Amino acid sequence: MFSKIITPRFGDVDGLRHINNTRLPMWFELGREPLFRFFNPEMELEHWNLIMAHIDVDFLAPMQLGADIEIRTRVAEIGQSSFTVHQEAWQNGELSAQGHAVVVHYNFIQRTPLPIPAPIREQLKEHLA
Amino acid sequence: MFSKIITPRFGDVDGLRHINNTRLPMWFELGREPLFRFFNPEMELEHWNLIMAHIDVDFLAPMQLGADIEIRTRVAEIGQSSFTVHQEAWQNGELSAQGHAVVVHYNFIQRTPLPIPAPIREQLKEHLA
Amino acid sequence: MFSKIITPRFGDVDGLRHINNTRLPMWFELGREPLFRFFNPEMELEHWNLIMAHIDVDFLAPMQLGADIEIRTRVAEIGQSSFTVHQEAWQNGELSAQGHAVVVHYNFIQRTPLPIPAPIREQLKEHLA
Amino acid sequence: MFSKIITPRFGDVDGLRHINNTRLPMWFELGREPLFRFFNPEMELEHWNLIMAHIDVDFLAPMQLGADIEIRTRVAEIGQSSFTVHQEAWQNGELSAQGHAVVVHYNFIQRTPLPIPAPIREQLKEHLA
Repeated sequence: MFSKIITPRFGDVDGLRHINNTRLPMWFELGREPLFRFFNPEMELEHWNLIMAHIDVDFLAPMQLGADIEIRTRVAEIGQSSFTVHQEAWQNGELSAQGHAVVVHYNFIQRTPLPIPAPIREQLKEHLA
Repeated sequence: MFSKIITPRFGDVDGLRHINNTRLPMWFELGREPLFRFFNPEMELEHWNLIMAHIDVDFLAPMQLGADIEIRTRVAEIGQSSFTVHQEAWQNGELSAQGHAVVVHYNFIQRTPLPIPAPIREQLKEHLA
Repeated sequence: MFSKIITPRFGDVDGLRHINNTRLPMWFELGREPLFRFFNPEMELEHWNLIMAHIDVDFLAPMQLGADIEIRTRVAEIGQSSFTVHQEAWQNGELSAQGHAVVVHYNFIQRTPLPIPAPIREQLKEHLA
Repeated sequence: MFSKIITPRFGDVDGLRHINNTRLPMWFELGREPLFRFFNPEMELEHWNLIMAHIDVDFLAPMQLGADIEIRTRVAEIGQSSFTVHQEAWQNGELSAQGHAVVVHYNFIQRTPLPIPAPIREQLKEHLA
């Protein structure tokens, strides 16, 4: 599991005085960075090789301003050329949102999915939920 | 169906020079405003009565800077106290992303879901996919 | 003058139920697109030739959800290799925010400012405040 | 001085593969939270008493994905009812952006500025640049 601590920003809450739903995909993207680094150790954008296929988020409890939020990131499933990430947002000891992302290993020049290389597959497996 | 035209902003593309995945939940939120107005005609935040339960997005084709994007919004399903929205993002004649949002009619003081009133249910039905 | 209409999004307001200050730089960036196109007619990112040097915003009156906002964009000053943009945000007939951006014509490979070519200078002049 | 570490997100870079200019006002807003807490110790939005009057940012060097960014926040000036914040963004040992925010102590019901109370003034003074 990877953990990333987020301090919510004044503008992250909306008119309901809760964290706006659109922040979660952003924080989950940030939480996936350690997985991105398995494929791109230097986070080198010129040779990037991952593309997003899907995201979803379930909102379980409103989150507030004023307390840090922990984003927990695990691998849920490993396919031939894609993997599914499971992520959670915790605030004040409560699971407040959870979701998934499907990320595809991808050749942007040929526009085709690429198999996940065995060494990276091993790294992903170490973070299986 | 409701339609909203979005001009992507320079900062909406990421290092891949595609629209970043996190923009879609924002644009879809904007596309839902006509549905929000069924419940809150004046968009009055003090008496807001809707809460988000779920969002998902499937990314079908990369979107670029430099061409407007149309967000199409329809009602996919109407439940007792919640409804599901189906949304699409079109650019250059291509369906580039689609997704859902589950929105709950909600009493924020009692923290309980509320039935969808019959007149609003009728309005939602007119926009069923 | 260039004009761009923005529909504020539910998540654009913050806990004060006003448009959050951080949205203005985003909307002003969008308002500058016609000026960007003088330098990059196709909005082609591979050959981009502009870099931001400065932004400022003065907040004159709170903006709300529920009414469109007009972003007005004019050229305030044209220098040797940079130009200053003056921008305003209007809602409900009221000037609610104004600001500037200093944009530099720039060679990203050599990392040096470039003179503004005469034909582009003429185009900018047509939009001087 | 207050310091806040930001990990840039994949979507924080734009088509130039630099941090987009619009992120800085967001990160600077986050960096001001300790000052907000002088006025609102619990970050309680119902009784919020600060309003933004101005922001500016100078962009000194492009920032990249892949390395943390430190936001440094100091008080630059203390007026009767407002104060000016000076903020810096550092990445890889380089000052990459700096800016100011003018924040006003404010009564949102009467819509008038409020004097800064002496005890808060003392707290602000401890963080003068």
